[in-house]
Amino acid sequence: MEKIKNNINAAMARTKAALVLKNASIINVFTQKIEINDIAINKYTIIGIGKYDGICEIDCSELFVAPGFIDAHVHIESSMVTPEIFSNLVIKRGVTSIIADPHEIANVLGEEGIEFMLQNSAKGTIDTFIMLPSCVPALEFEDNGAVLKADVLSRFIDNQKVLGLGEVMDVNAVTACNESMLQKILMTCKSHKNIDGHCPKVSISELNAYLCAGICTDHECSDVDEALEKVRLGMHVLLREGSAARNLIDLLPAVDDKNYNRFLFCTDDRHIENIMDEGSIDNCIRIAIREGLDPIKAYTIASYNAANCYNLRDRGAIAPGFKADLVIFKDINKLIIKDVIKNGEIYRNKETYSKVTSKKSVKLDFIKKDLFHIEAKGKEVNVIKVKPGSLETTKEKRKISVENRLIKKVVQAEEVINKIAVIERHKNTEKHSVGFIEGLGLRGAAIAQTIAHDSHNIIVIGDNDKDMEIAVNSIISKDGGIVIVSNGKLLDFLSLPIGGLMTCESPEIVIDKISKLNLLARKYGVKNEVDPFLTLAFMALPVIPYLKITDRGLFDSSSYSFIDLFEI
Amino acid sequence: MEKIKNNINAAMARTKAALVLKNASIINVFTQKIEINDIAINKYTIIGIGKYDGICEIDCSELFVAPGFIDAHVHIESSMVTPEIFSNLVIKRGVTSIIADPHEIANVLGEEGIEFMLQNSAKGTIDTFIMLPSCVPALEFEDNGAVLKADVLSRFIDNQKVLGLGEVMDVNAVTACNESMLQKILMTCKSHKNIDGHCPKVSISELNAYLCAGICTDHECSDVDEALEKVRLGMHVLLREGSAARNLIDLLPAVDDKNYNRFLFCTDDRHIENIMDEGSIDNCIRIAIREGLDPIKAYTIASYNAANCYNLRDRGAIAPGFKADLVIFKDINKLIIKDVIKNGEIYRNKETYSKVTSKKSVKLDFIKKDLFHIEAKGKEVNVIKVKPGSLETTKEKRKISVENRLIKKVVQAEEVINKIAVIERHKNTEKHSVGFIEGLGLRGAAIAQTIAHDSHNIIVIGDNDKDMEIAVNSIISKDGGIVIVSNGKLLDFLSLPIGGLMTCESPEIVIDKISKLNLLARKYGVKNEVDPFLTLAFMALPVIPYLKITDRGLFDSSSYSFIDLFEI
Repeated sequence: MEKIKNNINAAMARTKAALVLKNASIINVFTQKIEINDIAINKYTIIGIGKYDGICEIDCSELFVAPGFIDAHVHIESSMVTPEIFSNLVIKRGVTSIIADPHEIANVLGEEGIEFMLQNSAKGTIDTFIMLPSCVPALEFEDNGAVLKADVLSRFIDNQKVLGLGEVMDVNAVTACNESMLQKILMTCKSHKNIDGHCPKVSISELNAYLCAGICTDHECSDVDEALEKVRLGMHVLLREGSAARNLIDLLPAVDDKNYNRFLFCTDDRHIENIMDEGSIDNCIRIAIREGLDPIKAYTIASYNAANCYNLRDRGAIAPGFKADLVIFKDINKLIIKDVIKNGEIYRNKETYSKVTSKKSVKLDFIKKDLFHIEAKGKEVNVIKVKPGSLETTKEKRKISVENRLIKKVVQAEEVINKIAVIERHKNTEKHSVGFIEGLGLRGAAIAQTIAHDSHNIIVIGDNDKDMEIAVNSIISKDGGIVIVSNGKLLDFLSLPIGGLMTCESPEIVIDKISKLNLLARKYGVKNEVDPFLTLAFMALPVIPYLKITDRGLFDSSSYSFIDLFEI
Repeated sequence: MEKIKNNINAAMARTKAALVLKNASIINVFTQKIEINDIAINKYTIIGIGKYDGICEIDCSELFVAPGFIDAHVHIESSMVTPEIFSNLVIKRGVTSIIADPHEIANVLGEEGIEFMLQNSAKGTIDTFIMLPSCVPALEFEDNGAVLKADVLSRFIDNQKVLGLGEVMDVNAVTACNESMLQKILMTCKSHKNIDGHCPKVSISELNAYLCAGICTDHECSDVDEALEKVRLGMHVLLREGSAARNLIDLLPAVDDKNYNRFLFCTDDRHIENIMDEGSIDNCIRIAIREGLDPIKAYTIASYNAANCYNLRDRGAIAPGFKADLVIFKDINKLIIKDVIKNGEIYRNKETYSKVTSKKSVKLDFIKKDLFHIEAKGKEVNVIKVKPGSLETTKEKRKISVENRLIKKVVQAEEVINKIAVIERHKNTEKHSVGFIEGLGLRGAAIAQTIAHDSHNIIVIGDNDKDMEIAVNSIISKDGGIVIVSNGKLLDFLSLPIGGLMTCESPEIVIDKISKLNLLARKYGVKNEVDPFLTLAFMALPVIPYLKITDRGLFDSSSYSFIDLFEI
C-alpha cells in the first residue's frame, strides 16, 4: 500500500521522484517512435513520462533509453557459471530479465536442480524466470540423474518465477500422444502458463498437432520459410544467436512491418567467452540493425515482444507503472551501453557472490583402465567421425588391429583415432560403453568432462587407456569439471562442482581456464578447426545425426537404435 | 486427456476432423494477410490449417473467415435483457466473447448481482467474462443497494471467468490515494488480472498516477490527441460505439500502421434496438472499414487485440489450438454475416431461455401523493433543463406560483415543466427528493422507472402528483421496470424483474414494449428530440454536468455539492 501511494504521490508531483532521466530520447514500443521526454522513476517503478523533477537527475539529452532487454530462452548452464554470476554478466549487456530453462542441471539433479536455479538466481542482479524442463530425461533410453514427470513439475508450476513448461524437444511424444508428456502439458495449461516449443523441420500436420497441445514458441527455425510458416500458424518465433547455433541472420528476412511483433530474441546456449566478447541480446540487436532491421523494431523485439509473449505485464516498455529496467546508450545503431538501470537503480559492477554448497553429483567408484579394453569381435568397427564446425557426425567403417584378443588400434592411414567412452555417473550403475572417434587428433593425452548433453554422464577421449583412466578418476575426485591428462599426470582442470556443470568462480577465471585447457588440447594434437570440449559435450546426444555414443552404446540416429561396435 | 488426444489425432489426420471449412479466405491476424486454406475443427478447437478432410465439410471458396469478435467492454444491463438472452443477440453479430462489467446490477444487488451475471451468462451461447465493478456505490454520497469493497470483490477475483477489476471511474479516488480504492487495485494486481480505466480528459500527471495503479485500458477518449496520448503512455484504447456515446469515427484517425495493436472495439452501453438494427462489434468493423481503415486491421482490432489485452490466450486468431469461434461472410468490407461458428458448431437460433427466479429488488412501501408536495420556501426554484441529444443538463432559475403554502406550479411561458423525483428503493430508508425538470414536455401523465444510473433508485416524472403516485406504486408492485400512467390508469409497462434492470422476455417483446412506451410518451407530449427513458436514466447521475437529482436532493456538479431547490 505504501509503495503504490508513494508512486502516485510522485506521479502527481506532490513528492519528488527518486530519479529523473531528463530529456531522454525514449524508444516507445507502443507508438514505434522516438519521443523526447523525462522519465521519472520511484524505486522499482517508472512513475511518469512528462516534465518531472527528481531527487537525482541525469541529463539524457544526448542519450537514447530503451526498455531492459529480455532473453526469451537461455540455458544458463551453458555459461558454466551460476545464475547469480550469469546475471552479473548479462546485465552489463542490458539484459534485465531472462527466461531460463534449467534443462541441464535438472538432468543431473532433478527437482533439486530446479530449486537451486530458483534460489541462486534470486540472488542475482536481474529477474530470472524459469521454464520447467519438459524432457528429463531427454529420451526414454537415457541414464540421467532424474525423471521429472508431471507430478514433480506440478510442485513448481504455480511459483511466480515459473512461466511454464520448457522446450518440448520430444516432438514425437506429443504427436504420438505419449501420456506422460501430455500430462505435463495439461498441467501447464491448467495453470494458464506458456509452453515452449522446439520443433525443427517438422511436417505441417506434425506442426498442427504440436500447436494443438498449446505450444506457442519455437527457437529452432533454420530458414525464412520455416519461420514464416510458424508465425502464420500462431507461434512466437525466437531469433537465436547462441555460440554454436546462430540463426539470426538467416531468419531476419522473415521479419516485416506486419509480423515483427511475433518475433523475439534469445541466446539459447551461449558460452561465457562469447557473452564477454560479443554480448548477449545486445549482440542480437546490433546484428539485426546491421542487417537492415529498423532499430525501433529491434529494440521492441528485444523487450516488449518477449514480455508480451510470456505475459510479463510489468516490463518491456517505458511507461508509467512499468518496471524501471532501462538501458541507456548514445548511438541507436551501435548500442554501446552507457548505463543499465535495474529496479530503478543504476547498475554498478558486483564483485562478490554468495557461496554455494554443492551436493555430490559424480556418484561412481574409481575406475580401472581395463574398462576401456574392447574385445575384438570382428575385423571392422563403426567409428564416429567428427565434422568440423558442426555438431553432426558421420558413421565410418574402419579396420582394426588386434592384440591378445583385444582391439590394439583402429587402422587408419591419415590420422590418429581416439577412444571415446561414456560412463554413467548419477547412480553408480557401472553402465558404460567404449567406442572410437575420428577427427579430433588427440595424441599422448586424455580429456574427460561431465558436460555431455543431455544426461551429462562422464565422457572421455584419449589415445591411451592409462591417461583415460586417470582423467575419469580425476573427474570423480573433483566431483565434476573438465580435465586434461597426459603421461599419467593431470595437466589442468576446470572444476564444475555444481552438478558437474557450473562453478562459482568468476567469469574471468573460467575464461582463463577454458583458454588454458584449449591451448593444452592443441598442444596434444587437437585440430584447430574443432572445439574439443564443445564437441565432446555433444557426442553423447543421440538425437543429433548420425552416430553418437551414450553409456548404453553407439546410437545410430538414421535407424534410431543402438548398434554394435562391430555391426556391419 | 481424451480431448487433447483426439485433437492431436485429428491434426495428424489419423482421424477425420469433425468439421472442415474448405478453401476459406482466412484473415490471419499474425501475418496481417489473407490466406486461402482449409480450417479443420474438432469440437471446440481449431486443430489444423492445411489440407484436411472432415466428417462435415463446408465449401468456403467464396467466403472469408475471421476470428470471432470480442466486445472488450459492455454493460449487458443496458440491453435490458439477461446475459443469456443478450448472448443470443450478439452472437448473430459475430460476437463470440464479451468482457462485461456488471456495474449496474451490482449497484442494486451487490455480490448477488455479480453471482447472477456469472451464472446466467454461463447458460448463454457466447463466452462472457466479467470485470468486477470497482465503483459500487459510484460515489460515496449515493444510496444504492450495496457497498463492494476489496474484501467482497476478492471472493470473485480468482474465478476463471473474472478477468479483473472493472472501469475505475473514480479517477480522483486513485490520484488521492483513497485506501478503499487502492485495496481493490492491489487485490487485482495480486491476482495478475487487468484493471480497466475510465478517465476522460485527465491531466498528464493524473494520467501518470492513474497508470501507476496498473490501470491499462480506457474507453472514454473523445478525440485523437487524447487517444494518442493514452496509447503513448501504454494504455489499450477502446474505440466505443454505444447507443448514446459513439466515439469510433472521432477516434479512428488515431489508428495507424504502427499502433493499431493498441486499439480494441467496445459497445459499452448499447440498447437492444441498436443491437438488432445496426449490430454490435460487427457495426464497429463496418464503420471502421467505411471510414478507411484497412479491413484486416479492423478484424484484428475486433478479435486478437482484445484477446491479447485481456490475456485470453485461447482465442482471437485462426490457428491450431485456438478456440473454434469463427465468423463467415462473403464480402470483407460489407460484413454481412453468413454463419457464426461457436465452439466448433454453426450457431443456430435459440428460441428458449432458462427461467430466472428473481429476488425482490424494489424494497419500499407504497407511497402517497403528498410525497410530491413541496413547501414553498422561496419564490424561485432551481430547475433541471434537459439538452436534447445530450446527457448533460443546465441549471435554470424559474419562478413559482403557490397554493396553500405548497408550490402549485413553476411559471414558465413556453412549455410545461414536470416534477421529477427520486425515491430510494433498496433499503426502504424513505429517502427521497423532489424537483423540477424542463424540456421533456410530458402532459397529463407520469413516467417512472427503476433504471436510474448508477444507484438505480426509482425515478419518476409527471405533471400531476396523482399519476406520479400511481406510477411509483405500479413500479413497486411490479418490482421494477418502466411504466406510463395517465389519468390514474396504468397505460403500459415493461417489467424488469431482475434488479429492476433486466427481463427474461425475448428481445422482440422488449423492443415492441419500448416502442409502445415511446409512442405513449410522445402521445402525452414528450418532444421528439428527447428519448424520455434514456434521459430519465441519466438524470440521477451526479457526475454528468450540470444539475442532477438523487434521493438526497439536487446535485450541482459545478460546485460538486448538493444544493437546495430554493438556493439562489
